[in-house]
Amino acid sequence: MFKKTFQRYITMIEQFLTQLQWDKDILNQSMYYSLMGGGKRIRPVLALASAEAVGGNLEIILPAAVSLELIHTYSLIHDDLPAMDNDDYRRGRLSNHKVFGEAQAILAGDALLTYAFELLADSRLDQPARQLRIIHEVAVAAGKSGMVGGQVADVAGEGRALTLNEIEEIHKAKTGALLTVSARLGGILAGGTDEQVKGLTEYAQALGLAFQIKDDILDVVGDSETLGKPVGSDLRQGKSTYVSLLGLEGAGREMHAQILKAQSALKLFDEGAIFLSELANYIEQRQH
Amino acid sequence: MFKKTFQRYITMIEQFLTQLQWDKDILNQSMYYSLMGGGKRIRPVLALASAEAVGGNLEIILPAAVSLELIHTYSLIHDDLPAMDNDDYRRGRLSNHKVFGEAQAILAGDALLTYAFELLADSRLDQPARQLRIIHEVAVAAGKSGMVGGQVADVAGEGRALTLNEIEEIHKAKTGALLTVSARLGGILAGGTDEQVKGLTEYAQALGLAFQIKDDILDVVGDSETLGKPVGSDLRQGKSTYVSLLGLEGAGREMHAQILKAQSALKLFDEGAIFLSELANYIEQRQH
Repeated sequence: MFKKTFQRYITMIEQFLTQLQWDKDILNQSMYYSLMGGGKRIRPVLALASAEAVGGNLEIILPAAVSLELIHTYSLIHDDLPAMDNDDYRRGRLSNHKVFGEAQAILAGDALLTYAFELLADSRLDQPARQLRIIHEVAVAAGKSGMVGGQVADVAGEGRALTLNEIEEIHKAKTGALLTVSARLGGILAGGTDEQVKGLTEYAQALGLAFQIKDDILDVVGDSETLGKPVGSDLRQGKSTYVSLLGLEGAGREMHAQILKAQSALKLFDEGAIFLSELANYIEQRQH
Repeated sequence: MFKKTFQRYITMIEQFLTQLQWDKDILNQSMYYSLMGGGKRIRPVLALASAEAVGGNLEIILPAAVSLELIHTYSLIHDDLPAMDNDDYRRGRLSNHKVFGEAQAILAGDALLTYAFELLADSRLDQPARQLRIIHEVAVAAGKSGMVGGQVADVAGEGRALTLNEIEEIHKAKTGALLTVSARLGGILAGGTDEQVKGLTEYAQALGLAFQIKDDILDVVGDSETLGKPVGSDLRQGKSTYVSLLGLEGAGREMHAQILKAQSALKLFDEGAIFLSELANYIEQRQH
């Protein structure tokens, strides 16, 4: 059941991405290359599942849900640049700038971020007040106090010993904020009550933290082929992680606590949130 | 009168920019550094003057008007990067990456673009339907079929002989679209009629073209100190421009024709658009 629902969401997302207007020029090609790089689509899936948990229409919120994947993809393209993490590979394929060149990769990221807001303002959704609220929330989550700010703090923290609290703050900004807004987007645009949106928010906050702890764990015990990237890079870079601070076992316990916290935030939905609950288990068990 | 009105707009814009929340971290500093780099603020000025031409309240649309300057500034930061135009100076000051480093400059641009949409979705404007329409238009104008697309086409066209038509298409996308949406933003958010918005659109399209022709002219006859950048760079790069195709005199004639076209599009406003009309003269006569 979980797998079938997951697949239903993924199919909707992939079809929507494919049928967007992609011209034949190099800019469109480079945007499309990275968008179709085989990501897990966690953010739009979270949005769709949250919309379904509050009983909303998925087709209508699909453009907004997909916009989150555009923002995530732009951030990966820019993170991979030589001036940033200098990663030649992403999910087992050449990173954007290795295929299209640095200038093009910068511009492809810029255009993806901009396109995301075009989709969020799609008039077919026909809910201006809610859309405007979501656009504001997405901009805050992706911007200087959210994702971009977290990336700056992450780079600034490299090679320095961080406390658990500092790591958590960085993750909250760098990945947590956009994951949280993904669930809120689905809940709000689909007409969820304040209480439902609050539950989805708490769920996504805990899920985001668990997601990040799992990333840290996989960097130590993961298989580089399954992951599509080398393991042990955190250790080599002298990066403070949940594993370096809590040990493997301690990090695993903390992750599990966050998974339980996420699931308990779903209580008010009864059966409507079974998928979200199982998504938390999936995050805990994922191998890549 | 023109100067006084211009100064009133500039003061509003600068004050608003200054009083936005700027934290003390390096990301905020680098965003602020480029924002306060002494630009002409043409885009927000266009928005404010257009709003005033239709009789709107300037204070309320100010956040949206300023968002256009954030988008313009981000594009300059990214354009100056070593992988792009590799410019060490911008308006006589070191470019962003020369002061803060490449990684930071990429992220400062990303954060400025994102912050622009946060401002556009400002709830104090309290006009969700119009704001949503504007957000969509701004995203289109700044994105893959607008500013970013124009930049890609511009880079792709370097060293190749372009036709006048090709140059015009590149400029329309690279600078024209955002200038046009600046005037439309002011007109639409301030409650202008369809006819008024149409007039503002035609005005801004012609003005944008004149602005670009003037840029080409200044690159040949300008003073590098007044401009804050070296002259003759188009020629050295073998770039096709209005001047290389039409000659200095021909380019001047074409610019003047566009100025007249811009001014004639303002007829329906009578005295309400005197500033916009004089702004066109200012653009024609500017030395930097």
